Amino acid sequence: MQSLLKGNAVIGQSGGPTCVINESLVGAIEEAARHEAVTGVFGARHGIEGMLKEDFLDLTKTDPATLARVARTPSAALGSVRLKPGKEECAALLKVFQRFDVRYFFYIGGNDSAETAHIVQQLADDSGYEMRVAHIPKTIDNDLRVTDHCPGFGSAARFVALAHIGDNLDNAALRGVKINVIMGRHAGFLTAAACLARLGDDDGPHLIYVPEVAFDLQDFCRRVDDHMTRLGRCVIAVSEGIQDKDQQPIFSTGERDSHGNVQLSGTGALGDFLASTLKKNLKLKRVRADTFGYLQRSFPTVISETDAREAREVGAFAVKTVAARDSSSGSVAIRRIGNGKDYGAEYFFTELSNVARDSRSLEDQYLVSGSPDVSPAYYDYVAPLAGPMPEVGRLADARVPKPGTAH
Amino acid sequence: MQSLLKGNAVIGQSGGPTCVINESLVGAIEEAARHEAVTGVFGARHGIEGMLKEDFLDLTKTDPATLARVARTPSAALGSVRLKPGKEECAALLKVFQRFDVRYFFYIGGNDSAETAHIVQQLADDSGYEMRVAHIPKTIDNDLRVTDHCPGFGSAARFVALAHIGDNLDNAALRGVKINVIMGRHAGFLTAAACLARLGDDDGPHLIYVPEVAFDLQDFCRRVDDHMTRLGRCVIAVSEGIQDKDQQPIFSTGERDSHGNVQLSGTGALGDFLASTLKKNLKLKRVRADTFGYLQRSFPTVISETDAREAREVGAFAVKTVAARDSSSGSVAIRRIGNGKDYGAEYFFTELSNVARDSRSLEDQYLVSGSPDVSPAYYDYVAPLAGPMPEVGRLADARVPKPGTAH
Repeated sequence: MQSLLKGNAVIGQSGGPTCVINESLVGAIEEAARHEAVTGVFGARHGIEGMLKEDFLDLTKTDPATLARVARTPSAALGSVRLKPGKEECAALLKVFQRFDVRYFFYIGGNDSAETAHIVQQLADDSGYEMRVAHIPKTIDNDLRVTDHCPGFGSAARFVALAHIGDNLDNAALRGVKINVIMGRHAGFLTAAACLARLGDDDGPHLIYVPEVAFDLQDFCRRVDDHMTRLGRCVIAVSEGIQDKDQQPIFSTGERDSHGNVQLSGTGALGDFLASTLKKNLKLKRVRADTFGYLQRSFPTVISETDAREAREVGAFAVKTVAARDSSSGSVAIRRIGNGKDYGAEYFFTELSNVARDSRSLEDQYLVSGSPDVSPAYYDYVAPLAGPMPEVGRLADARVPKPGTAH
Repeated sequence: MQSLLKGNAVIGQSGGPTCVINESLVGAIEEAARHEAVTGVFGARHGIEGMLKEDFLDLTKTDPATLARVARTPSAALGSVRLKPGKEECAALLKVFQRFDVRYFFYIGGNDSAETAHIVQQLADDSGYEMRVAHIPKTIDNDLRVTDHCPGFGSAARFVALAHIGDNLDNAALRGVKINVIMGRHAGFLTAAACLARLGDDDGPHLIYVPEVAFDLQDFCRRVDDHMTRLGRCVIAVSEGIQDKDQQPIFSTGERDSHGNVQLSGTGALGDFLASTLKKNLKLKRVRADTFGYLQRSFPTVISETDAREAREVGAFAVKTVAARDSSSGSVAIRRIGNGKDYGAEYFFTELSNVARDSRSLEDQYLVSGSPDVSPAYYDYVAPLAGPMPEVGRLADARVPKPGTAH
């Protein structure tokens, strides 16, 4: 039996914030207090950036009532970062950890964060410095491997679904074409969640376009035209990451972020391009486009309770697992047990290398071949994650007869 | 004493939907059931459009439980319309009313709807057809005269405030410049409501631009630069209707709606233009723009309870007032009684001509001379309308000392 590995813990948050990323942070802080092995709990400001600058907050200094409020507060309370460190920076990181007697490193983020965690773990192993590294999953894109789904996704899916419930009613009241552009560079999970807004017959979104399916502008126009003919209106959910058959973006400003990725969010360009294409090709008058942008990942009060609870538990599970004797490094994953009303989840550890680098896309079972839509299986997948939708009231369709006509 | 005017009532909804416009509809339907004078309650589908087509729903056919759900459902349950009828169409309308023995006409909408109501009332008076017309105020822009504020505004203000609470935290986590474009062609009330997001020191929005104050692009760049130097970040709330000193839009696609107004909503063009201007002039890397678009007027679950209650009461008040003996036509207005914790409201009737046509802008007392900001008086004005904001948790700023340094 191994002896207990005693030392400090560092926790960091990385990548795009979510509404529940602080639940994972607080889950980890609270759990750490229960383990003799963890002597101090340091929060890195702005992830790797703060670690390299030795910019740490003592997380034991925040009182429990404030911590409870932090957990319910969207966005990354420690600050976040988009830096993806190379081997050299990871080596510098390890030196900082050694200086601060850090034996536990928890990184809350996506697959880039898992890769950082993996490199640090390998460097520590190579240099004979005993430490445990845990990746705590977080992403609104839901694009991590192994896990059934990612903390952060459910609340973002809830925002997208609620937005479409309201937008579908708005579009029914003032008819026309409405395009909604949703986050998700490579994975269409979040865009697909718009299907939860279909509460009644003919409710939108009427078309759902995800990056996993090649986008064809002509086919798009034809399908919108069909809906305008049939219903007099059309609501379209489209991922910011849609690509043509040659995997080229349909429209982009050309700007690149620090990862070298083309900028997709924070601009209305794709929506405006699709709207003007429809106006021109179909001679339509009322075509509007909204880009949900950062609202969908940071809007307070729009939180899936399932997502919040799981995010908290995933943070706690990471600490409990690595602080135990005979533990090893890894990434926390969620296994679904039961679905629908019997939905439940349990947690397990998987190798960091299983989650690092590669990402997940919408599986074929969630798509509908030859149609810009998602399958009933996808609805069943996402419904318990986003939580119950509000009831929508509709007036009885009882027409008043014209005077003088038979009743 | 006048005899009771007996006849049917027509209710319509007009203009951009809101989250609580159905509260007013249901308030009117429920109140109508209490008055012997009102024999039938007809809902016009898509406002004036449905009235001209004699397309009416019998609103007594929807059961009470469904009506309660309709009240909580965003967007116009009857459908809406942007048609502003001329005298000829109003005359046709009066003929329909006569055919259907309509003696009460309730129109839920903004100043254009008040004008329609006013024209119909005048035509009825001129032709000696006895009827009462009531305008029930509704607008997220809050730009109606006489009334202290408009139903629909509080919930939209709540959306804008919550969005900025989340967005400010998001911007603090991943620093840069963030521009949020908010609805409001001529009136800056809704954009100004972003001030409710300032829950702590240095919280955004750091700059607030409304249409009432001439926008200068150079001054804008200079102020953003100042904030970037001081804070390393900047959140900006900007109205879609900002104009330069010659009252020209800062940026527009040039498209016009059916009222001949330049299209401002449903496109990200203004935000993208401001973002690219900042990038170019200030050599900034991370500048993002979101246009809140239709989400801010139709998002389910984001509702101010004060707004919902008042919207319901305003609908009921309209019916109660005109169904009484010795009543006359008019527009319902809200008088504020008490503020802050003692906030309360009462309702009164004002002449339709006082509300028709002209609109209201942010008064000088709500602005700050020479600064893109709103005054404390505006905060006090808007806070009770938008309802309580969620508490935000922040970690204690307790830095971990570097190893080897004195404690």
